[in-house]
Amino acid sequence: MKPADDNEIERLISLMAKLPGLGPRSARRAVLHLIRKKSVLLNPLSDALKNVATNVRECINCGNIGAAELCEICSDEKRNNGQICIVEGIADLWAMERSRRFKGQYHVLGGVLSALDGVGPEDLGIKKLKYRLNTENINEVILALNSTIDGQTTAHYIADELHNDQIQITSLAQGVPIGGELDYLDDGTISAALNARKLF
Amino acid sequence: MKPADDNEIERLISLMAKLPGLGPRSARRAVLHLIRKKSVLLNPLSDALKNVATNVRECINCGNIGAAELCEICSDEKRNNGQICIVEGIADLWAMERSRRFKGQYHVLGGVLSALDGVGPEDLGIKKLKYRLNTENINEVILALNSTIDGQTTAHYIADELHNDQIQITSLAQGVPIGGELDYLDDGTISAALNARKLF
Repeated sequence: MKPADDNEIERLISLMAKLPGLGPRSARRAVLHLIRKKSVLLNPLSDALKNVATNVRECINCGNIGAAELCEICSDEKRNNGQICIVEGIADLWAMERSRRFKGQYHVLGGVLSALDGVGPEDLGIKKLKYRLNTENINEVILALNSTIDGQTTAHYIADELHNDQIQITSLAQGVPIGGELDYLDDGTISAALNARKLF
Repeated sequence: MKPADDNEIERLISLMAKLPGLGPRSARRAVLHLIRKKSVLLNPLSDALKNVATNVRECINCGNIGAAELCEICSDEKRNNGQICIVEGIADLWAMERSRRFKGQYHVLGGVLSALDGVGPEDLGIKKLKYRLNTENINEVILALNSTIDGQTTAHYIADELHNDQIQITSLAQGVPIGGELDYLDDGTISAALNARKLF
């Protein structure tokens, strides 16, 4: 509760508080910070939001976001290398891109199968994925789904659906993360790393 | 690092990451959330920021923020009751207002004395405060500064500066917070509460 008629500030605070990671208290702090830094932060942020709202859209091919009908990755001829990487969401696509290791195309599911949340195969655009596999020149599908129960269930479902002789289906390796200390790892990860051990 | 030409999204993320309480990772999450909720969150937030940037300004009398030259509190005749409450910043003013207990006017210092940060009396608008005490009909100054070393130093400085026979200078009580458990309180608070004990 702030002075009754400062409705614009109130409204900004309540919108900011809806962002993940911000609650009412940190939203108030953020708004005061914005007002204090009007020219270097408030105005630029307002413009950047307007730009993104106007220009950013979902890629009609893979589900990534970008400024055109086809995203940067789908329209990049060099990335048409026969590999397609299946990810749950755009955040995962960004994480893959940060690693700079993968040079193929993506397919963003927009979720994972979940009986609890009522997400079935028809919600994940598996049809569209099959269509892409039939029309584009794909020879490897890489399952890069999260190592959670829902993620792995979805991976198994997709692997079953896509199974045929022309396409190789692979998934990310499981094991000890780089910089990981065994003492801090869960048993499941250690078992997986042991099962997948390799000659040194 | 996201696909190279998504500059608008990149720029929005880097601006969001400058907000207190958000780092690069949570800024990415927030931006994806905004893009997903375009009509209910992204567009309204963009408009709200623009509104605040255009309309919100500092009150010329007390340092609060509002939509007019004089803030809601300074222009409210009913709050001209002879009490003026000194706070460090606008967040503190909002906290006081949330308690709904104080019905007078405010004076926002915009900081506290700090030798380390090079903040001296001339930076805190003490002159303006004295001018208000001389021209407005004030009979009590309530020091509502944070209970930190810098806050209390500033409180003592202001009390010395304003000392005269016409004006009563008071400060917030110190003691056990409502709902506080002694076991979790620091020694200083318990000492203060004991020193200021009262008949039950």
